[in-house]
Amino acid sequence: MNIGELKEYTRDIYHLSRISALLGWDQETCMPSRAIEERGDQIALIQGLIHDRLTHETVGSSLGRLADAPLSDLDRRFAAKLKRDYDRSTRLPKALVTGLAKAASSAQAAWARARENNDWSLFEPHLETIISLIIEKAEAIGYEGHVYDALIDEYEPGMTVETLEQLLVGQAPALSGLVKRIAEKPAPDDSFLQQPYDTGKQEAFSRFILKEFGFPLDRGRLDVTAHPFTTSLGADDVRITTRYLPGFFNSAIFGTIHEAGHGFYELGFGDDIRGTILAEGASLGMHESQSRTWENLIGRSRGFWERYYPKLQQLFPENLAGVGLESFYKAVNKVERSFIRVEADEVTYNLHIILRYMLEKSLVAGQIPVRDLPEAWNMLCTEYFGMTPTSFREGVLQDIHWSMGAVGYFPTYALGNLIASQLASVMEKSLGSMNELVKSGEFPRIHAWLHDNIHVHGAAATPGELITAISGKPLSVDPFMDYIGGKYTRLYSL
Amino acid sequence: MNIGELKEYTRDIYHLSRISALLGWDQETCMPSRAIEERGDQIALIQGLIHDRLTHETVGSSLGRLADAPLSDLDRRFAAKLKRDYDRSTRLPKALVTGLAKAASSAQAAWARARENNDWSLFEPHLETIISLIIEKAEAIGYEGHVYDALIDEYEPGMTVETLEQLLVGQAPALSGLVKRIAEKPAPDDSFLQQPYDTGKQEAFSRFILKEFGFPLDRGRLDVTAHPFTTSLGADDVRITTRYLPGFFNSAIFGTIHEAGHGFYELGFGDDIRGTILAEGASLGMHESQSRTWENLIGRSRGFWERYYPKLQQLFPENLAGVGLESFYKAVNKVERSFIRVEADEVTYNLHIILRYMLEKSLVAGQIPVRDLPEAWNMLCTEYFGMTPTSFREGVLQDIHWSMGAVGYFPTYALGNLIASQLASVMEKSLGSMNELVKSGEFPRIHAWLHDNIHVHGAAATPGELITAISGKPLSVDPFMDYIGGKYTRLYSL
Repeated sequence: MNIGELKEYTRDIYHLSRISALLGWDQETCMPSRAIEERGDQIALIQGLIHDRLTHETVGSSLGRLADAPLSDLDRRFAAKLKRDYDRSTRLPKALVTGLAKAASSAQAAWARARENNDWSLFEPHLETIISLIIEKAEAIGYEGHVYDALIDEYEPGMTVETLEQLLVGQAPALSGLVKRIAEKPAPDDSFLQQPYDTGKQEAFSRFILKEFGFPLDRGRLDVTAHPFTTSLGADDVRITTRYLPGFFNSAIFGTIHEAGHGFYELGFGDDIRGTILAEGASLGMHESQSRTWENLIGRSRGFWERYYPKLQQLFPENLAGVGLESFYKAVNKVERSFIRVEADEVTYNLHIILRYMLEKSLVAGQIPVRDLPEAWNMLCTEYFGMTPTSFREGVLQDIHWSMGAVGYFPTYALGNLIASQLASVMEKSLGSMNELVKSGEFPRIHAWLHDNIHVHGAAATPGELITAISGKPLSVDPFMDYIGGKYTRLYSL
Repeated sequence: MNIGELKEYTRDIYHLSRISALLGWDQETCMPSRAIEERGDQIALIQGLIHDRLTHETVGSSLGRLADAPLSDLDRRFAAKLKRDYDRSTRLPKALVTGLAKAASSAQAAWARARENNDWSLFEPHLETIISLIIEKAEAIGYEGHVYDALIDEYEPGMTVETLEQLLVGQAPALSGLVKRIAEKPAPDDSFLQQPYDTGKQEAFSRFILKEFGFPLDRGRLDVTAHPFTTSLGADDVRITTRYLPGFFNSAIFGTIHEAGHGFYELGFGDDIRGTILAEGASLGMHESQSRTWENLIGRSRGFWERYYPKLQQLFPENLAGVGLESFYKAVNKVERSFIRVEADEVTYNLHIILRYMLEKSLVAGQIPVRDLPEAWNMLCTEYFGMTPTSFREGVLQDIHWSMGAVGYFPTYALGNLIASQLASVMEKSLGSMNELVKSGEFPRIHAWLHDNIHVHGAAATPGELITAISGKPLSVDPFMDYIGGKYTRLYSL
């Protein structure tokens, strides 16, 4: 196949991945409970069709012939992306793929039981299997430096342990120190956030904010799920989800804003990559940078609540009548050492990730055996947070990722925070202070900047290339530490 | 492939057809408007995969070898069904299939415009194309008697013009006469059905009735669409839809009950055919018989309203406080000569179908040219109903079917009414009067009878075989005429 034929050939892969996304979305939002088994077969069938097309021998031979062909810049990007996908898929023996899927399926069930019963022993043998298969997977894919490089690369192309040590582990002492200094200050009152909030009004406020942002509901939807996510069912069909907790304000609104950030990315791919395998985010870290930009840099800014708190107070007088703007702003930015990652604030969040990164890296390098994982977890937790989990549930059993075989995924959450800050600092140079933009509702300008600089490129550039092109330097931890240091020094009068 | 391998091979076809159904269901219930074009590509891709698998040459050669193999009864049924699907698919040249799909796509758009503007000339050239392609299709498929036989067979296996003349055209004079006698009687008041009915309460009542029927919501859903339908996304995932009109009572509840009848059929296929190409209705007529049994024989019976009218009155006191049971029962069974099929009652309904059957049969036989269709429509309408449409909208342009290339489909609606009555008369012999069963809420017994006699077989038997096996004779018009004659003679004191 020549380049044109390859593009035509891979269009089916693009469509099948969206069809698979619909099967997944429907499963989480609509599907009747007893349909779960057959839905699994349906998804497996579509995934198999994608795999067969992607790994077809003519793809490999065509890519080989293309290596020396004169191609436009975009075609070269396309060929590089296809080669990456082809290589990652063909290097894994089918038995290993099936073995991992099967092991993950029972490990997930075991994890849910183990977590429910706070019984590590129920999960340990399953994680043993997963880790040994994951090591096999890394060896099959290949790597130059650390075995973990082969794993993180799946989610964050080009990322390595060498870089992560500097970006993640390097920031741990400073973050840990900041958390400690904050903990010495009086904690702001946030009890009014944990009260009954009418879920209908929560939804109304979430939809109002989406409208303010300009999220296009003729090209997407907002629905309810247990665990919010964003999924792309087509170039003009990007669906975000949230949940309305009856007793806690933060979850719905920040969840909605977070997913809207992912949604804008998926809706923003350029016309030249529409309907191709380049129509996806450059990496999970880059994707998370978009959700974090909207959730934290915009949604948790003072400007945002200066603009919208009066409306929120009107909507929930029973909860907020006596709460001033300053108290509310402090409450939604309360920093707290806690055991649970998904409830963590902006400051402690990356520490939770660093802990997981340290552990999973050591697991796949064979430096700690699975049986010692709970103890290793608790030690690191004590080191970073100054407190030790008293149950597996609030420790090693809290996250689903490892049971799914997703090793190398966690760092992308922290990278998202770093990327968001680094790119926002560039945006501010051209558009002015983010806080002022948000305060005056200049969401179209923010969105246009993100769109033109990031979204439009999809996966036609690597995250490293994008970051360097936009900010003039590789990803660094400084902009994030500057942002977090500045914001919380003011908030807590450090 | 041997029989076991063929069954395994066709499992993908089964799954792909359910995946296609999800794409369609989502399009009608959830999909954001601008996603329509890409959704079309997605459905076309899945349909193409089904077609490629079904028409693969090894299917043909394997079926050929099976002809003399010793097979179990069920395997023989499976092979016969696969051969039927294979033959129908392979006999159509790809150019004809594509041509029809393309012509139907523009004809549908033209039909919508024509109907909106009441302008036949906008649709006429498109219908010309459709009819000439449909004739080509019939010739490619082949037939022994009438050219129309090749078309009706797609929807109603084994049905022929010869039989339809007797079952449909034969009943026209008697039906027409009954309608005339009813029209001479005073019309019951049904103005209270055409009033504002709170749509939330309409939904509550619809869901209540589904629960009374035992429709399993862990294996299905009820959603809202513009044009209600039922679709099967898996053996344990059958979704029905309805609509809540704010100013008309009948639509939601009878729509829900009708679709529930279709839903029970799809949910009832036996374990031995689960996940195979036999897991579908025996024919569209047989399917419609199930929806009509629930909608008309159950939902429009006196027993049903004796049981539920008090509850309905409580729910809608503003509409029904002063309306007695007898008045309500008469109103939901009001017989009225009207131009529009989808609003027709039990008595006039089949006349609308007979009219369409006569016309489409003549069209494909070349006995009337497309340009004369409006006049032919109006003449038949005058003959059957004693009144002539004054616009194309309430005449020849009212239905979407022909624009979709669905010729041979209409008769299945009328056949559904005949089959429902014939099978119900057998059921009554073993379970007692339907009216009494319904009145005392014996829905599990009715459902079990339909399940054990009809649903469980899926497409493992032809409709003709099923009807003869259950009732001891082929389909006849008498049970339907007996039912309709008896019910409306009492209702209108004829």
